[in-house]
Amino acid sequence: MSTVGILGGGQLARMLALAGAPLGVRFLIVDSLADACASQVAPLQQADWRDFAALEQFAGRIDVATFDFENVPAETAHWLTEHTAVYPNPRALALAQDRLAEKTLFREIGLDTPAFAAVESKEELIQALQTIGYPAVLKTRRLGYDGKGQFRLRSAADVDAAWAALGHAPLIVEAFVPFERELSVIAVRSREGEFRTYPLTQNWHADGILSMSLAPAPDSDSLAEQACALARRIAETIDYVGTFALELFVHEGRLLGNEMAPRVHNSGHWTIEGAPCSQFENHVRAVLGLPLGDTASLGINVMFNWIGDLPESAPVLAEPRAHWHDYGKEPRAGRKVGHATLCAFTVVEMRERLARVAWALGREDQAEPVLKALAG
Amino acid sequence: MSTVGILGGGQLARMLALAGAPLGVRFLIVDSLADACASQVAPLQQADWRDFAALEQFAGRIDVATFDFENVPAETAHWLTEHTAVYPNPRALALAQDRLAEKTLFREIGLDTPAFAAVESKEELIQALQTIGYPAVLKTRRLGYDGKGQFRLRSAADVDAAWAALGHAPLIVEAFVPFERELSVIAVRSREGEFRTYPLTQNWHADGILSMSLAPAPDSDSLAEQACALARRIAETIDYVGTFALELFVHEGRLLGNEMAPRVHNSGHWTIEGAPCSQFENHVRAVLGLPLGDTASLGINVMFNWIGDLPESAPVLAEPRAHWHDYGKEPRAGRKVGHATLCAFTVVEMRERLARVAWALGREDQAEPVLKALAG
Repeated sequence: MSTVGILGGGQLARMLALAGAPLGVRFLIVDSLADACASQVAPLQQADWRDFAALEQFAGRIDVATFDFENVPAETAHWLTEHTAVYPNPRALALAQDRLAEKTLFREIGLDTPAFAAVESKEELIQALQTIGYPAVLKTRRLGYDGKGQFRLRSAADVDAAWAALGHAPLIVEAFVPFERELSVIAVRSREGEFRTYPLTQNWHADGILSMSLAPAPDSDSLAEQACALARRIAETIDYVGTFALELFVHEGRLLGNEMAPRVHNSGHWTIEGAPCSQFENHVRAVLGLPLGDTASLGINVMFNWIGDLPESAPVLAEPRAHWHDYGKEPRAGRKVGHATLCAFTVVEMRERLARVAWALGREDQAEPVLKALAG
Repeated sequence: MSTVGILGGGQLARMLALAGAPLGVRFLIVDSLADACASQVAPLQQADWRDFAALEQFAGRIDVATFDFENVPAETAHWLTEHTAVYPNPRALALAQDRLAEKTLFREIGLDTPAFAAVESKEELIQALQTIGYPAVLKTRRLGYDGKGQFRLRSAADVDAAWAALGHAPLIVEAFVPFERELSVIAVRSREGEFRTYPLTQNWHADGILSMSLAPAPDSDSLAEQACALARRIAETIDYVGTFALELFVHEGRLLGNEMAPRVHNSGHWTIEGAPCSQFENHVRAVLGLPLGDTASLGINVMFNWIGDLPESAPVLAEPRAHWHDYGKEPRAGRKVGHATLCAFTVVEMRERLARVAWALGREDQAEPVLKALAG
């Protein structure tokens, strides 16, 4: 039986291990924290990702390595390829770690993006803004997730503050696009090149962190084929293996590439119960070279993200086709500690369930944009 | 966060732990075997069930104890009640361990059974057979499961051999009923007395071990209400908390009680993917006093049991809405090592999937009675 090693022991590793266990797959997590939440469901080797003696042990105990976090040091990922099979490949990881490389690839494969420019000095920033205009967003090229490492530029008056906040790192400045909505494609590609996508997901963020997801995204039929073809082109270009997310904006009815996450993704958590084979099980299948599983949607699915701390579970548990996920983490401001997924076979059912749960939890504001989207 | 302790670390404990983890529940397994298969997904304390010093440690680390196996020694179950919360209660466990007490209860609550008699000597057996007639089945009152501890009596000529095989233990002799089919009710009752049942399951055995299940059982509407009411009466009579199975025969169109399993049950494995809340998650919810989950069926579901060793997984993995379960156990004759569940929304789809999988695995004989039942 195969053992999958996972670098990083957060909730993504936890859900990977839970999804892979029924297949008879074993897991070994490597994380610097002894109480990483994945360790509640799979064995953990406590080690720093730069401790190569520990990594050698780790590599010796697994059949394939994968990631719960894209910001694994490049040298670690590369070192691993010389000691075990690694999926996705470190090149794909490196690409998705760098907003400049990522957006350049998007353009190359035919996916438009907001206007962007790499900037290495305040002067370059000022010059780039003359072309890009305001509002714009200054972002670190690396180590950005959940809205971290970003600074919004409303006018030239913000340039000094933005540079003071982020100027220490390689940067990219992007046009701020007043998009109509955000979509993501959750896609998976196997070692054999088999490729599948889940129905498009519509997402809402709050404070830069995913707040709600709805799948299938309403009225997205006309975009779905194009979005999936783009995801496929990206995956094939970089020989990606595993599950990944392609985040898109819809602007004036057209798709723009925002970013790619080279891993299972928060906006795909609904697939655990909302699809026959979840993004987690499909990632495990992909990296082990097994046939990919069914990515159809079993009706309509809405995910609430729980940030900071968990609300009361009872109103969710009492609802039909409702699912509770507590990651076993300590509460902390801005931390993803759990999610809930509501499933239904009709829009009417979903609206009722969603409204009932939102009301019982005092989360009407969080649910409101989804209810609006479901109203058509 | 609550910790559930499980006595026994087999596949049922394994699937309980996998189902409870998303709720944020932690588990601690106690088993005499260090490599019990549940230890791949939850912490294990290796100890004998009669080692009360070890059990005291165990009880101190958990919030509630439950069972993966009904044949836990009665004194162990009773001892535990003095050190922690225990669900189901040891009285329910003891009752289901004794075929005589079980059948007596069935009759008391209005569920017919095949004719039966307790026998304590060969003379009593011969006398009982004069009333019960042939064919009959001699069974040990305790420690019987998967057809173990049974001897079929075709005529008076079999009495000596039957007695030689089983006469060392307390026995019960039962009329052999040429039933039309076997059904099970998977039911769950919470600490608060909330009660739910899944749609009836039809089962087929081979060599005394469950081979195939189909849910919902075809043409069972007229029996479902009665079967569920009987299960409820049993649960309320013995104040049962948790998931249990009531196994029934259908004979001349009427229900007869066969036995009760005071635990999650092999014939309910289809609920993992075939119902919004599985028998495993509902057991965890029940013993923790959480609201019970949705027990509706998401279409039609067929389970293949894998006995002895696992067939090739690829034909199942490649099928839409098909699910593979490898318990992580070593192959051994007669051992339950895994199962597969096929789900579909229509009978036509199910017949196609089932036939395709059975053919690819060379399991046409195993699937044949289910295909026949689906043909109506």
